[in-house]
Amino acid sequence: MAKAQLLRQQMFGRRPARAVGAHNGLTAKLVEQAGFEAIWASSFELSASFGLPDASLLTMTEYLDAAEAMDEVVSIPVIADCDTGFGGPLNVARAVKRFERRGIAAICIEDKLFPKMNSFAVHDHQLIAPDEFARKIAAGKAAQRDADFMVIARTETLVAGGSVDAALERAHVYADAGADAILVHSKSSLPDEVLAFAARWDRDVPLVAVPTTYPEIEEPALYGAGVRLVIYANHGLRAAVRAVQEALAELSRAGHASGLNGQIATIPEVFALQGMPPALTPVR
Amino acid sequence: MAKAQLLRQQMFGRRPARAVGAHNGLTAKLVEQAGFEAIWASSFELSASFGLPDASLLTMTEYLDAAEAMDEVVSIPVIADCDTGFGGPLNVARAVKRFERRGIAAICIEDKLFPKMNSFAVHDHQLIAPDEFARKIAAGKAAQRDADFMVIARTETLVAGGSVDAALERAHVYADAGADAILVHSKSSLPDEVLAFAARWDRDVPLVAVPTTYPEIEEPALYGAGVRLVIYANHGLRAAVRAVQEALAELSRAGHASGLNGQIATIPEVFALQGMPPALTPVR
Amino acid sequence: MAKAQLLRQQMFGRRPARAVGAHNGLTAKLVEQAGFEAIWASSFELSASFGLPDASLLTMTEYLDAAEAMDEVVSIPVIADCDTGFGGPLNVARAVKRFERRGIAAICIEDKLFPKMNSFAVHDHQLIAPDEFARKIAAGKAAQRDADFMVIARTETLVAGGSVDAALERAHVYADAGADAILVHSKSSLPDEVLAFAARWDRDVPLVAVPTTYPEIEEPALYGAGVRLVIYANHGLRAAVRAVQEALAELSRAGHASGLNGQIATIPEVFALQGMPPALTPVR
Amino acid sequence: MAKAQLLRQQMFGRRPARAVGAHNGLTAKLVEQAGFEAIWASSFELSASFGLPDASLLTMTEYLDAAEAMDEVVSIPVIADCDTGFGGPLNVARAVKRFERRGIAAICIEDKLFPKMNSFAVHDHQLIAPDEFARKIAAGKAAQRDADFMVIARTETLVAGGSVDAALERAHVYADAGADAILVHSKSSLPDEVLAFAARWDRDVPLVAVPTTYPEIEEPALYGAGVRLVIYANHGLRAAVRAVQEALAELSRAGHASGLNGQIATIPEVFALQGMPPALTPVR
Repeated sequence: MAKAQLLRQQMFGRRPARAVGAHNGLTAKLVEQAGFEAIWASSFELSASFGLPDASLLTMTEYLDAAEAMDEVVSIPVIADCDTGFGGPLNVARAVKRFERRGIAAICIEDKLFPKMNSFAVHDHQLIAPDEFARKIAAGKAAQRDADFMVIARTETLVAGGSVDAALERAHVYADAGADAILVHSKSSLPDEVLAFAARWDRDVPLVAVPTTYPEIEEPALYGAGVRLVIYANHGLRAAVRAVQEALAELSRAGHASGLNGQIATIPEVFALQGMPPALTPVR
Repeated sequence: MAKAQLLRQQMFGRRPARAVGAHNGLTAKLVEQAGFEAIWASSFELSASFGLPDASLLTMTEYLDAAEAMDEVVSIPVIADCDTGFGGPLNVARAVKRFERRGIAAICIEDKLFPKMNSFAVHDHQLIAPDEFARKIAAGKAAQRDADFMVIARTETLVAGGSVDAALERAHVYADAGADAILVHSKSSLPDEVLAFAARWDRDVPLVAVPTTYPEIEEPALYGAGVRLVIYANHGLRAAVRAVQEALAELSRAGHASGLNGQIATIPEVFALQGMPPALTPVR
Repeated sequence: MAKAQLLRQQMFGRRPARAVGAHNGLTAKLVEQAGFEAIWASSFELSASFGLPDASLLTMTEYLDAAEAMDEVVSIPVIADCDTGFGGPLNVARAVKRFERRGIAAICIEDKLFPKMNSFAVHDHQLIAPDEFARKIAAGKAAQRDADFMVIARTETLVAGGSVDAALERAHVYADAGADAILVHSKSSLPDEVLAFAARWDRDVPLVAVPTTYPEIEEPALYGAGVRLVIYANHGLRAAVRAVQEALAELSRAGHASGLNGQIATIPEVFALQGMPPALTPVR
Repeated sequence: MAKAQLLRQQMFGRRPARAVGAHNGLTAKLVEQAGFEAIWASSFELSASFGLPDASLLTMTEYLDAAEAMDEVVSIPVIADCDTGFGGPLNVARAVKRFERRGIAAICIEDKLFPKMNSFAVHDHQLIAPDEFARKIAAGKAAQRDADFMVIARTETLVAGGSVDAALERAHVYADAGADAILVHSKSSLPDEVLAFAARWDRDVPLVAVPTTYPEIEEPALYGAGVRLVIYANHGLRAAVRAVQEALAELSRAGHASGLNGQIATIPEVFALQGMPPALTPVR
């Protein structure tokens, strides 16, 4: 089954599909091996992997190559976080053509003004007009070739300080424009505003949630509220950062690497993740 | 001071320079912040980051773009692990021109046959003829523009089952060809063969060691033996793999992310690594 | 119809399919508009477009991105000239996966030793062993997903000074390994050796010819000899070089551009090639 | 002498420096061989070379890689046409860092709204506010490391239907922000508005002209008006398009390539442009 079709199936099952943030082939493989249903090719993770702010500094080429590199080594679908869509409707159309050609199952675009700043930044986040964003969605949908490919519309209304009413109004416009799912983002420490939005959502377009700042909520509760895709957007990268910091501090202090052996993956474990044939893999 | 000059200075100090493996801007920054002197743009880490075997599958473009992305966000020099040099003397010359232009301080090439297999693989590693490798070194040296740029010659003689005598013989040829340093690689679980090599090394070309399989040896001992650059080639990536595996297993089991909070970096910590201005960074 | 399927159909018609060399989207479009059946993503043209010798200096990434850029803007199939396959069997397998994913209909690999030199160079061209090349073909065929994708095996036996007998012997091995077509290359100024080869070819694997040095031969004659794909490998680029040289000489001499107007395409003509909507295109 | 310094010298000589449009290494070499002083890495040529509209569809990565590929094979400076600067001030700063690192001597940014449309398109061209563009210029200037690197500010006031007064007002703001030169663009069929602008320009910041639609004006006249850099932006590409069209039409009609030989460059001529050693080059 093609991956775009697979992602659609997963989003219409009896529990939510779960996508986890990744930024390269290795982290995508780790997501797959942990049993999740999809890869979230996260712009925050990707920017962080370059050591750069998540502020529209990376180019579509960099997003595209990274998403393809992830897709090449996993069997689960990749959803590409495409920020604001790299420009206007023509840019979104080109992005859809290019991501679809490379095997990506879905893209997600958001209604912030380009260049955007990361949603968690203390910043005066500006949105573009709803109809302007709707034109981006429509251009993207018109450009796809496989009917299963999805364009997920993410509204940053709540992040930008708007009301649930305003978010719903935008979401209706986006659904009318052809959005395959609505991601309602929030940086509240509680799920209340996302749940309030979901309770009043009256379309058959599925909802997507990213519980980064409100992590206590559990998947069944989100499912019950109508969420069909839960994105754990950046937890792998954050785990890696902490672990690398600790290992390198120990290494620098000790002046030799032998003390690390208990806490780091072995060479054979890395070989396995690389798809190295077992016959070529050393015992330890 | 230019980075190539800085690297040379560090290799002629009173303790060995220490380079640590990285594969993107983020991991390079973590190496810098842990206090090491240089980045080892590791082909093993880079291949692993793609989820692919370390078997000459990535292209020079992929190595080059990765090395540049690391160099852009750190102040310490980057040494690019260039495997077999991407072909013959013309390819090495082109690589030197391109890596130097992108700000890289040194490249390292090895005397295995292209396409190579990772040195730790259970594999019949083949070496090319010494004079053929010498021509690669000479072509690289002739192509550089800044006198401080370095071409490190890595001999895989010991990895391929050769003797210390054979390694020394090759190293002499490589030094004569213009190599700026000699990396003598070993996959022994003890440092004995590297130390035996070093004890008999009689040139003023500095030595480089990669104590992956013999981690007990300490930096002062390597320095005393004549090693001027110690490379911890892949410990950061291995720490990251283990940590991501554990975090994602916990996330999958729990069905929500709140349990991870003690063991992963916070959003503000990642923002700091991205170079996000503090004024834009949330409190938590 | 998928492009790989289309290419197969074209090669089993009542006249030979004709592929013409290109190196970017624009030149590919010009080939399509002139009525040819396929694009030859030529390594010679691509190297020349970089201003670099055709000597295995470009990377697979550069070939791949160029081939994709061509495929994106034409409706006819693209055949990617992949030189020696970028390494051994693992590299060919990876190339097939990547080119197929990007929409390319076929790749062509040749039996020269990597790094290769352009066939027209005055050079001691070395071939690899027939069975070693057969392993590359087999690895490529095993890696493809769409049954219509083709791996064209190019033998350089005649270029390297070998006999027609030797070329035939190799071609049999390559056909046995799964090659979808055999390209028998020649730098003779006459078609005789290619025709001699074709006369004795006894398999149902179709033949491919590249009449660069023997341009007098006409397509019906090649078809009659069993050739099903004729590649005009580099004539567009060579026409461009001559024209640009003449135009810039005139421009430099005149000190203004008005004298060029009769001999260069107009802005609206270029707009049309770019796919700019007519409503946005100026009258002149 | 570094290329950025060379470009500055050329712009302060006794005749205008002349830059000619190119889009890859080959066309850059042809510009150099024709005796011009600089390469204009044209966004129009680059877009056209992809077969795509000049409408902000290509990414900064694509511009950067193309500019570097040009710079690698010529000795004259490359000026990179960077459209609107790829976003806001942070994007311009990143672009300056990346282009400078890759050896580019100058970038040019324009004051149209992103995503922009080609200036010759029949389109309602929108400009951003002068102070917003000034912040881009200032951010670019603050990011450069070599004092000789230039940021050329291009005003599209006249293209967007504004007056010479309005263009002058903007140019003053841009000069105050640190612009190293002012490019005043025009799509008039006469040079009158550019000359009117130049006559009233009262700063020591040099002027740049692009006489595409008003080609009759000669270099001495532009120099007399204060223009220090004349850009022939796309004549090479337009010459190539016409020649390739004609050659391929002839090839398709004839069914063999021998008739082209008088009008296309020979293989040895292309070899010479590729930098192939003469000893490897065939006689014909």
